[in-house]
Amino acid sequence: MFIPLLLNWYVNPYHTSLIVAKEKGFYKEYDIDLCLLQPTNPSDVTKIVGQGLVPLGLKAMIHCFAARSRGYPIQSVGTILDEPPTGLITPIKKGIKNISDIKGKRLGYVGEFGKVMIDQLAKEANIRENSYETVRIGMNAASAIIQDKVDAAIGLSCFQQIEVEEAGISTRLIRIDEAANLGCCCFCSILIIAHENYIQSYHETLENLMRATLKGIELTRESPEEAFECLIKVNSQLNNPLFKKIFHHTLPFFSKDCLNVERDWQKVGNYANKLGILKNPGNFKECYTNAFIPIKQIG
Amino acid sequence: MFIPLLLNWYVNPYHTSLIVAKEKGFYKEYDIDLCLLQPTNPSDVTKIVGQGLVPLGLKAMIHCFAARSRGYPIQSVGTILDEPPTGLITPIKKGIKNISDIKGKRLGYVGEFGKVMIDQLAKEANIRENSYETVRIGMNAASAIIQDKVDAAIGLSCFQQIEVEEAGISTRLIRIDEAANLGCCCFCSILIIAHENYIQSYHETLENLMRATLKGIELTRESPEEAFECLIKVNSQLNNPLFKKIFHHTLPFFSKDCLNVERDWQKVGNYANKLGILKNPGNFKECYTNAFIPIKQIG
Repeated sequence: MFIPLLLNWYVNPYHTSLIVAKEKGFYKEYDIDLCLLQPTNPSDVTKIVGQGLVPLGLKAMIHCFAARSRGYPIQSVGTILDEPPTGLITPIKKGIKNISDIKGKRLGYVGEFGKVMIDQLAKEANIRENSYETVRIGMNAASAIIQDKVDAAIGLSCFQQIEVEEAGISTRLIRIDEAANLGCCCFCSILIIAHENYIQSYHETLENLMRATLKGIELTRESPEEAFECLIKVNSQLNNPLFKKIFHHTLPFFSKDCLNVERDWQKVGNYANKLGILKNPGNFKECYTNAFIPIKQIG
Repeated sequence: MFIPLLLNWYVNPYHTSLIVAKEKGFYKEYDIDLCLLQPTNPSDVTKIVGQGLVPLGLKAMIHCFAARSRGYPIQSVGTILDEPPTGLITPIKKGIKNISDIKGKRLGYVGEFGKVMIDQLAKEANIRENSYETVRIGMNAASAIIQDKVDAAIGLSCFQQIEVEEAGISTRLIRIDEAANLGCCCFCSILIIAHENYIQSYHETLENLMRATLKGIELTRESPEEAFECLIKVNSQLNNPLFKKIFHHTLPFFSKDCLNVERDWQKVGNYANKLGILKNPGNFKECYTNAFIPIKQIG
């Protein structure tokens, strides 16, 4: 069976487990031909999967909440990356040490919710919205900082921060989970999302998909060199020391069991509620299912 | 209206006209939100568009013929890149001067039809299939040559050949149109393809799409610097001298009118027939339409 999956970014190290499962034939064992597509704008993913145009995609919890609030019936069927540290990446020389230092600064964000997060953090620090500038930078977080188009930008410590550092710029990370008192970085865990219609029609396929994906994660964690070879086979532009470094920094965050964690969904649900992007507060359980994950269920 | 379009490769200079039309708001003027998706395997595109999973895509004539022969009812609604020179790119030191020199060599190709073309050329040169090796290299044509995984690979003179040359390797291009006596490189023109159901339902949208695309092409041809800025805004990894060079070499090939040319379709149809990938020889006209191109029609 032929299944397109829309990634949330160009093929990069944090997709390695999916790539490995594809390249090593783990999906094929279950007769699954997984076609990996890349967006040019990460904000397209929930719209496309939410309209049932592509059956599967990758996104974070906040996007699931927002999509459902907008009438797109998507659910997470598993986690592939667990709580990668996320925050405002800023060159040390910019002098931004915490949120109260953003006055007069240009702050980059990927899609619409990055701006919502920045504005909420500013509000809680009693900083007026017109005293800082937000810039939507899409997939160019690292280059926007390197080229001094922004003074800080939201990104991952194991990805964009390394890109900036490798360009010779010393940086600081102001973690959003700490600034927002979340207690974990689960809001940026990366999930496999699917349209409810697809989920209802393809139970067995999804079970097989998750089985094969877990095998891909296992190989990635146990044989990273072999896994990196798979990755650069699919995107040879990553065959350089920078992306090898990003890959090594990403290794600790591959989810070892793919589970959706109820506690994390609740925590991020409360956060999404505070950010004003939740229509039905409290309805966290409709956003995910662990039904297709081939191990002991939680809860 | 929200329309996903699946590119035939990662975002690169030959997509500039589409990117420009998007970034400059030309599509938006017609209320079109064009979401550009990138494949990880170019061979996925006709399958996905042919099954109606994504409404639009980019592909070449041979893929249209093959898709229709397989029961995927797709048509070309316009040409965006006109006859970019294509051939076997090979390092001079490999000593491959023409097709008869491929004995004992490893030849790389992107998707299934590259292999069909190589085998046909070999057959006509009386070279047995087991006396050379073909290697499917997907999107890694240039790096496969640079890393000496193949002795030659099919690619564009304005793209992969420049990538290899910039890595310090002097190369030769054995043009496939010349080797196959085609008289033009129209078989690798890049087309916007759509599913027939989509075409039947969205006449006005397609007219608007082609109008805006033509505006994007005009700007690209008339203000290349401004166009390149749009390109690197969407894919900042292209912001380097190599891709600026590729962009300049691609400039002559942007179709100035987007038309499907009947003579070219016939020529490539005959070629596809010879390659054995055509089910209904002679039925070239069902493969394309110029109905949505806002200028004087041909034929």
